[in-house]
Amino acid sequence: MPPMNFSAMSSFDPLPRAGSRRLLLAGCFLAAGFAAGAATVKGELMPVPASLQFNPGRLAVAGDFSVAWRGPVDPRLRDGLGRLLDAVEQRTGLTFAHTAAGGFAVAADAASAALVIECAGPGANVPALDEDESYTLEISPRQAVLRAPTATGALRGCATLQQLLQGDATGWFLPAVSISDRPRFPWRGLMIDVCRHWQPIEVIKRNLDGMALVKLNVLHLHLTENQGFRIESKKFPRLHEQGSDGHYFTQDQMREIIAYAAARGIRVVPEFDIPGHATAWVVGCPELASAPGPYVIERAWGVFDPVLDPTNPQVYDLLDGFLGEMAALFPDPYIHIGGDENNGVQWSANPHIQAFIRDHGLKDNAGLHAYFNSRVHAILAKYGKKLIGWDEILHPDLPAGSVIHSWRGPQGLADATARGFATVLSNGYYIDLCHPTWEHYLNDPVPPGSPLSVEQQKLVLGGEATMWSEWVTPETIDSRIWPRTAAIAERLWSPRGVRDTDDMYRRLALVSRRLEETGLAHESYLGPALRELAGDGASAADLRALRDFTDLLEPVKNYERGKQQPAANQFTPLTGLADCARPDSAAARQFAAAVDRLVRGSLADESVSSGVRASLADWKSLAQTLGSGLAVRSPRLHEAAPLVQALTVLAGVGEEALQVLASGRAPAPGWLPAELARLDQAAVPHAAVEFPVVAPLRLLVAAASLTDQRGKFSAEAWRAALQRIAFPPPGNTAAP
Amino acid sequence: MPPMNFSAMSSFDPLPRAGSRRLLLAGCFLAAGFAAGAATVKGELMPVPASLQFNPGRLAVAGDFSVAWRGPVDPRLRDGLGRLLDAVEQRTGLTFAHTAAGGFAVAADAASAALVIECAGPGANVPALDEDESYTLEISPRQAVLRAPTATGALRGCATLQQLLQGDATGWFLPAVSISDRPRFPWRGLMIDVCRHWQPIEVIKRNLDGMALVKLNVLHLHLTENQGFRIESKKFPRLHEQGSDGHYFTQDQMREIIAYAAARGIRVVPEFDIPGHATAWVVGCPELASAPGPYVIERAWGVFDPVLDPTNPQVYDLLDGFLGEMAALFPDPYIHIGGDENNGVQWSANPHIQAFIRDHGLKDNAGLHAYFNSRVHAILAKYGKKLIGWDEILHPDLPAGSVIHSWRGPQGLADATARGFATVLSNGYYIDLCHPTWEHYLNDPVPPGSPLSVEQQKLVLGGEATMWSEWVTPETIDSRIWPRTAAIAERLWSPRGVRDTDDMYRRLALVSRRLEETGLAHESYLGPALRELAGDGASAADLRALRDFTDLLEPVKNYERGKQQPAANQFTPLTGLADCARPDSAAARQFAAAVDRLVRGSLADESVSSGVRASLADWKSLAQTLGSGLAVRSPRLHEAAPLVQALTVLAGVGEEALQVLASGRAPAPGWLPAELARLDQAAVPHAAVEFPVVAPLRLLVAAASLTDQRGKFSAEAWRAALQRIAFPPPGNTAAP
Repeated sequence: MPPMNFSAMSSFDPLPRAGSRRLLLAGCFLAAGFAAGAATVKGELMPVPASLQFNPGRLAVAGDFSVAWRGPVDPRLRDGLGRLLDAVEQRTGLTFAHTAAGGFAVAADAASAALVIECAGPGANVPALDEDESYTLEISPRQAVLRAPTATGALRGCATLQQLLQGDATGWFLPAVSISDRPRFPWRGLMIDVCRHWQPIEVIKRNLDGMALVKLNVLHLHLTENQGFRIESKKFPRLHEQGSDGHYFTQDQMREIIAYAAARGIRVVPEFDIPGHATAWVVGCPELASAPGPYVIERAWGVFDPVLDPTNPQVYDLLDGFLGEMAALFPDPYIHIGGDENNGVQWSANPHIQAFIRDHGLKDNAGLHAYFNSRVHAILAKYGKKLIGWDEILHPDLPAGSVIHSWRGPQGLADATARGFATVLSNGYYIDLCHPTWEHYLNDPVPPGSPLSVEQQKLVLGGEATMWSEWVTPETIDSRIWPRTAAIAERLWSPRGVRDTDDMYRRLALVSRRLEETGLAHESYLGPALRELAGDGASAADLRALRDFTDLLEPVKNYERGKQQPAANQFTPLTGLADCARPDSAAARQFAAAVDRLVRGSLADESVSSGVRASLADWKSLAQTLGSGLAVRSPRLHEAAPLVQALTVLAGVGEEALQVLASGRAPAPGWLPAELARLDQAAVPHAAVEFPVVAPLRLLVAAASLTDQRGKFSAEAWRAALQRIAFPPPGNTAAP
Repeated sequence: MPPMNFSAMSSFDPLPRAGSRRLLLAGCFLAAGFAAGAATVKGELMPVPASLQFNPGRLAVAGDFSVAWRGPVDPRLRDGLGRLLDAVEQRTGLTFAHTAAGGFAVAADAASAALVIECAGPGANVPALDEDESYTLEISPRQAVLRAPTATGALRGCATLQQLLQGDATGWFLPAVSISDRPRFPWRGLMIDVCRHWQPIEVIKRNLDGMALVKLNVLHLHLTENQGFRIESKKFPRLHEQGSDGHYFTQDQMREIIAYAAARGIRVVPEFDIPGHATAWVVGCPELASAPGPYVIERAWGVFDPVLDPTNPQVYDLLDGFLGEMAALFPDPYIHIGGDENNGVQWSANPHIQAFIRDHGLKDNAGLHAYFNSRVHAILAKYGKKLIGWDEILHPDLPAGSVIHSWRGPQGLADATARGFATVLSNGYYIDLCHPTWEHYLNDPVPPGSPLSVEQQKLVLGGEATMWSEWVTPETIDSRIWPRTAAIAERLWSPRGVRDTDDMYRRLALVSRRLEETGLAHESYLGPALRELAGDGASAADLRALRDFTDLLEPVKNYERGKQQPAANQFTPLTGLADCARPDSAAARQFAAAVDRLVRGSLADESVSSGVRASLADWKSLAQTLGSGLAVRSPRLHEAAPLVQALTVLAGVGEEALQVLASGRAPAPGWLPAELARLDQAAVPHAAVEFPVVAPLRLLVAAASLTDQRGKFSAEAWRAALQRIAFPPPGNTAAP
């Protein structure tokens, strides 16, 4: 997971179904517009249950809402119910009955209780990959009954209840519903890189709460990196003491995290990235490296040379001790050993290592890496643990039973499963790259028409959203994880046929509110951050304009930010416009939808174009407010000045296109390329942000260029023509 | 401490300079309007330094800003400088030079550094009451030089630097200035009650950061109460295990808090409230109570009977062990033993205790309390600690050297100092009672014309803002502490003559921004809280109206909330309108100032009345938006409906008064009492909130009633006439 492998950038395709940036933008249009959706899902739930039927009526929720158990009671479930009731109290302002001792009161009579939970047994003590997470939920106007074979299944049902609760003018209620639910994949994860930017325990906890709400069940913690060694080792304290700037999880804290996760039915899989990505290991233990030290903690982003020396017996001594210690700390059977992006520089430069390769018949650096992995595999096996690692560990010598974590491309899954290895997919789920939600959502590990055989498909355990942390702090990380990861959670839980992007976005807005209620800051971080950018003198009108402006921006995608801010490193404050802009602008999506309605229908239809026109007028107005205000006065917003100018240009191009459309006459020759050029100019990213509204504007201009020929096209031909004009293949001229 | 002594409510006057609620409101008018201010303070600093002179020019702050030490370097100061530079980086987006090891780089050459810190010595290891906190700061366009005799003094100077930093169109800078500063009082505290509602360590830490920014130096933690025992006792684990619902500070956490505070030059004074307020003590140790148990943790608010039994030797055994343990944990020489509101019920009902009083010649329950205190004093003395307690411990038998913490009224300070006891003032600083800032600000421990003798005045150590926690959660507590406590900090630090309320409010708005930057949530909690109240279906316009509406509200004052919500207890969610409304509404203050300008000048002056008219129109508009929208649709906002209606009435009354003023003609007979009655009606608190704009509206109506007689009054007579009409003494009719 080399979020910053610049050299590989042109060939690395983080999203298998998307090509160039332009096609991505076009894809947005297609997804929002012409693409046929699956059946719309009623209700608010995310992920959508395996089986869901709404019935007439509702179960009222008031202060007298009572709960009861039927059958055995598991402490984990009792706590889960307590969290559910607490969340409902906080949201509704209701106060449910409490006991004198302080907990929620449980009704003795299940028959008359508003909610009955019937759990067959506690299930595994520690959440496991093969845990039965199924449950059923029957809500009638009289009672809600949640049944599950395990406490984990019941916890999933509690998450569903939390999402089902609604309020309207008459009060709070649960809709009558019949749900029978179970996940599609057993491994549904979120990886958080706590190394490049340290993320303390409170960040982890609130993200665990968010994960529980959308039924994710694996927290993968990336604990060692060039930029930080983030776990306490009592056996080898030099590792964390010298490799972390004092920012690491103590073992007590890690136990707290593991317990917090287990209480929510979530496994914790630790990653210790070896043999590469190892600078922070060798700061305290330079003798383990493949080239002489000393080393300091890496502060920059990218792929670096320091790598453990697989020919050095001390390396295995340390790994045996360290992994044994970690095996005792982490109850999960899987330990992730990374294994990615070993660039081989230190190995190739070290004659002793090259001799070792020759002497042991290992062929090359890749062979040495496989040798290393098999040694590590043996250590893990000794401690009863299974090995998981990134794509690169796949090698003919990789011991059976290992799991391949695929990040590089769709082929990774195919290759690994072809050789009989179980896999977890992260390619297509790189949420740090700031792509829109729909791309992740449609990225199915086993899509319709998958080339994988049935046997191979069984080896696909699931997937993980990966949150690499070059560009996030504890203040901003939630806004990069959420709400988009909820859509990935749905992809991994819900039936394959659930893939209507419009409906996903509708439900995502609601689940985002529920996520906020768990304590996540993906929405609430923005107000203070924008006030900081605006500075002390900003008026309420200034702040509104800045908010509207920021809502039109997105952070640049893929690895573009590193190019925009090449000097940035671990010390750079991440409090700028790019940190306030959020992926997948809802305002831009709404604008694209309005443009889509316009260009699909009658081009001169004022009732449709008026919405587009109003948006353009808003842009001009806020650009004017900012251009003569904060972009001048606030030192933080000087970087916004060119963007404010670009927004004025974008609004102007849009207004010209609307004029042409309203006239119904062909524009003057040269108009189209001139407008597209203006858009190209305004689309150049600046301050690590960009305007996603450029794509719909290109379509608008394309439609205007053909305004007098609209009647000649079938719907399909029209779509194709607009695409060709708006997003011509490189080297082509923009003409129909 | 007895924020909820309902029985004492009518006689307990939390703010010595204010009388009835009406007079309070009138006082607001006077403070904002006619009252003559002291000389306006230039600049942004709060507290205002003892000596401050701005000079021409500015010192630019850019990425090359360099710092250097002159003289010895204290680790505490190094950390403090790191925090300052970090805060500046976060705010400005600049990145200063770092070392490879990760810290900020320090320039070798002090002569050319932008900032030089010259600290004579480290000062006390642990912050102490007699610490020298003075510093000087000289900023020229070339260099800033901070000099201090101790690290604590230098830390105070760093807080000044943090507040001095400004940005404008040309960039970031420190204004050229000469400051020589030292505090007026050595004990400047904030008390946080972590018992009634538990406040975890992160709340304490961010409040310590806020305290440091405004130079407060004592964190007083109220650690035991009827509703919770919040400190781990390793000797008597029953105390915290059974008395806390699991919500307590471990000793490790407390050491972390103490170190965090010490790093900021802040003392931590623990309070163990005995012998009353003791329910949580006797849950685990019922044998210590003065009546047979068992006991459960108290959930309601008020004064309760459970009290330790001073005749029981076991009580002193436990206190000896427990206080010995705490004396080792807390380095500060003072231990607060509470001692307030012992209602004597259990003592009076216990024949054994009454016999003990007789046998020992103790006269009465008060004598027994004094006996108990002298025993506790001896225990503390054994462990090298001094005793501090609330007003009620003052008794002829109180051992010399104890400190009286005065909460009941101004007489407490006089009585205690007359008997030679040092004192700390909290009467007038009860920030939980939701009074406006100016009242606390003008509450001087030793005001001009103080009746205290010079010797007595020397015994006034300072004061403490007290944050009792019946009505606050970790989410809302900051909004009750800040920014008002910054004004109290200024009262306790700055020279007595600094008391211009207008200028205080101007600077308070700025320091509130700086406080927000430390991580305090007094502003940022509101957005999410209002979104919750509004519910899922709220539009942006709905939310804006709700925000504007909430900004016009204040929580009810004094102990009114308990009367409004009599069933509320520790389990009640605090997520309603009263929790979103904040004390000292800025919108209401601005409206009052506009009304003040209007009624002081020419009553028909349209240029002045137009602002008032615009506010009234805004109120009507937002009342309309909410009245037909959220107040109907959102179950959380049903409670707002009567308030929305009241706001319409208030706007209507205001508009009628403006019409009368514009006409210049006397209103019809009966108009005045009718309008005042409408205001009375609309002023009735509901949902534990009220409209502070009622007071200026009363003045507006009063002015309108005299519109044709304005010319007959001198300024002073006019003011008196309006006061008499707007706020007639009880039983009086409203006539001039």
